[in-house]
Amino acid sequence: MSQSSTLPTPSPCPVVAFMTDFGLDDGDAGVLKGVVLGIAAETQLVDITHTVAPQNVASGAWILAASYRYFPHGTVFVCVVDPGVGSSRRPIAVSAGEWYFVGPDNGLFSYVFAEQTVHQAVTLSQPAYHLAQVSSTFHGRDIFAPVAAHLAHGVPLSEIGQTVDLVTLQRLDLRLATRQGSHFQDARILHVDHFGNLVTNIPLHLVPDLFESSHVELTFPQQGRTISERRRFFSDSTPSQDTRPFIYGDSSGYVGVAIRNGNAARTLHVDDGSAITFVITS
Amino acid sequence: MSQSSTLPTPSPCPVVAFMTDFGLDDGDAGVLKGVVLGIAAETQLVDITHTVAPQNVASGAWILAASYRYFPHGTVFVCVVDPGVGSSRRPIAVSAGEWYFVGPDNGLFSYVFAEQTVHQAVTLSQPAYHLAQVSSTFHGRDIFAPVAAHLAHGVPLSEIGQTVDLVTLQRLDLRLATRQGSHFQDARILHVDHFGNLVTNIPLHLVPDLFESSHVELTFPQQGRTISERRRFFSDSTPSQDTRPFIYGDSSGYVGVAIRNGNAARTLHVDDGSAITFVITS
Amino acid sequence: MSQSSTLPTPSPCPVVAFMTDFGLDDGDAGVLKGVVLGIAAETQLVDITHTVAPQNVASGAWILAASYRYFPHGTVFVCVVDPGVGSSRRPIAVSAGEWYFVGPDNGLFSYVFAEQTVHQAVTLSQPAYHLAQVSSTFHGRDIFAPVAAHLAHGVPLSEIGQTVDLVTLQRLDLRLATRQGSHFQDARILHVDHFGNLVTNIPLHLVPDLFESSHVELTFPQQGRTISERRRFFSDSTPSQDTRPFIYGDSSGYVGVAIRNGNAARTLHVDDGSAITFVITS
Repeated sequence: MSQSSTLPTPSPCPVVAFMTDFGLDDGDAGVLKGVVLGIAAETQLVDITHTVAPQNVASGAWILAASYRYFPHGTVFVCVVDPGVGSSRRPIAVSAGEWYFVGPDNGLFSYVFAEQTVHQAVTLSQPAYHLAQVSSTFHGRDIFAPVAAHLAHGVPLSEIGQTVDLVTLQRLDLRLATRQGSHFQDARILHVDHFGNLVTNIPLHLVPDLFESSHVELTFPQQGRTISERRRFFSDSTPSQDTRPFIYGDSSGYVGVAIRNGNAARTLHVDDGSAITFVITS
Repeated sequence: MSQSSTLPTPSPCPVVAFMTDFGLDDGDAGVLKGVVLGIAAETQLVDITHTVAPQNVASGAWILAASYRYFPHGTVFVCVVDPGVGSSRRPIAVSAGEWYFVGPDNGLFSYVFAEQTVHQAVTLSQPAYHLAQVSSTFHGRDIFAPVAAHLAHGVPLSEIGQTVDLVTLQRLDLRLATRQGSHFQDARILHVDHFGNLVTNIPLHLVPDLFESSHVELTFPQQGRTISERRRFFSDSTPSQDTRPFIYGDSSGYVGVAIRNGNAARTLHVDDGSAITFVITS
Repeated sequence: MSQSSTLPTPSPCPVVAFMTDFGLDDGDAGVLKGVVLGIAAETQLVDITHTVAPQNVASGAWILAASYRYFPHGTVFVCVVDPGVGSSRRPIAVSAGEWYFVGPDNGLFSYVFAEQTVHQAVTLSQPAYHLAQVSSTFHGRDIFAPVAAHLAHGVPLSEIGQTVDLVTLQRLDLRLATRQGSHFQDARILHVDHFGNLVTNIPLHLVPDLFESSHVELTFPQQGRTISERRRFFSDSTPSQDTRPFIYGDSSGYVGVAIRNGNAARTLHVDDGSAITFVITS
């Protein structure tokens, strides 16, 4: 895997976007922004979320995956879900696709690495781009935010720290479902969203026949429940059908299960990680 | 109802404000902002709230009503509480008063339409102002946010889509209380705020005599509780009186009920929608 | 205490930061920003938090203390935890250290006053810098936000209102622990953070020997639990030790207690305010 030379160019109106598990109660998310503005005053600051389940790297990775693509080219993402803060896990900055990613090298960027060309990665070894005092427990404030601000301000990645061999970057086992004809392997629920909709790990590009096939069965073995109804739209039903769960194409790019005006996760007693089976009969 | 010609002029430093029921956990609110900045990089982005009760259009309409007036002229509001996403409900953009409103035509803008001159409304029928790929379930990201960004950038409403006859715009039955002498009809609790204060549907302009009249009675029939004490200020009391609920003029422009340093909704077991009676004795 | 003449100069790219107990559901936090942008369109807006425990001035004061230092010089902080809104408590604006602080004079700025040179303070007595209509219950919107915007825009503090004698500013009894040799007086838990980590009121500068001393005992008398293990990093342990609580130096500048990948407050049944004893054996 070689370092590509087509790095994104810094934007004249840079965006720094934040995703953390800091919560919104303590002021830590605000502190990250204070630090960025002290270095790069003209930056546009955007929150993706600060309520990733505490220290749940896989969940953070998924939320980032569903979001980053919609940000302007050149956006610098500060991502901190970091159970290993202060340990030997590397702090990194990566240029991938048309964006920059700053955070711990613990798998948080796994989907990005799988979906985009990774141009360059560095460890954040250059203290000139950190705060003067670095604590052992809040690298978001002391290292990641200032590095992101300097990147947004146009400092090249190569000045931020030492180059990292791209093959050594940590990647989670994403365990997406795979298709064998009409059957799927390793299918499961990947994410439960705010409305209680269930997002599976079956990418929509694997099921171009989702709405054209004669029959579909999505089964929750533990709950003893099978769903066959498909809908293109949430509101694509008469009122009397409203409480029946249905299969749809989620906007994140995966097969989903929802109940119109209801909460599928609660109704079906399904949580993320639940195994499912999925069969398409053509 | 004719289209007015006095449209607000786009601001040199445009504001896009967001109100949705997306919650803050999934990253969807952040994605809206990423989309806006990709089109109109200099925009000021402001969250009104992203935690409208899921798919509760009436609640969203009320929160918008209490907020929009305080934003700069020319602000574009992106409002998404949209149980009918993907159905035949129209996506619209409206110029009303000194502001623009973008979202589903499902009643979310009812208070705005009741309070402001509506200048012009269009359906979002021009795909050139949407994202290239439009999903069936996330119009906030794919249609409303990009349209808002183009409006903030100065694209005229008439280019965004086809003109809508203003009389066809959806409006909720707002069911505000009406006054007949000392009695009020259809009085009820409209909203429970973060502090547990109860906001009624009795507009303050109907009760200029609230503090001058000799006696006031606000009754919760179901709870068998009547409140007569009135206070101009939350702290207008001796400590010993603190646990007694009182009537006040809420900053949203309606009669309210509060308990000093306490939670009136929890103490009185009252929720929004609860019927009340209200009598003023001069 | 005399008024200092070295006031911070307004920034060309001003920041207004917000800390309130308004919650995120009602739109009030967004309204503050709408008001600021209507007066000072170029302002950078940052949320510290809007979920301070309702009307808990001490908790708000602590969160501000952990945050303000990381914001650019010239930042104007709008801080509203204001149980006495509308009463005789003074609305104030203060220049302290390199920042401005706007809010109620009720102790919310106690740590700032203890840590920084206070240059000047005024009551917000000049209505020209308020909204045209001032409600009795929402001074955040009607007084504090517009005053902050005018300060960010370069209006001098002396025009905003009448000078306040600095000795009359309200200050909470901060009750930090004090050290007498190896023992500490008045030690307690000051704050429970989002991860359930327990932050004590023992400043790290009082314990330069925290990691060098031979033995440390932090005891929760009510829980009958004593902790002696110290760690420099959260991840500084083998997996098998993970459930043991340990003492560390919190990034806020105080001694803390945490459980790796766990919630110390929940596990130890400790809340903020809990008394502790702390002994260092050299």
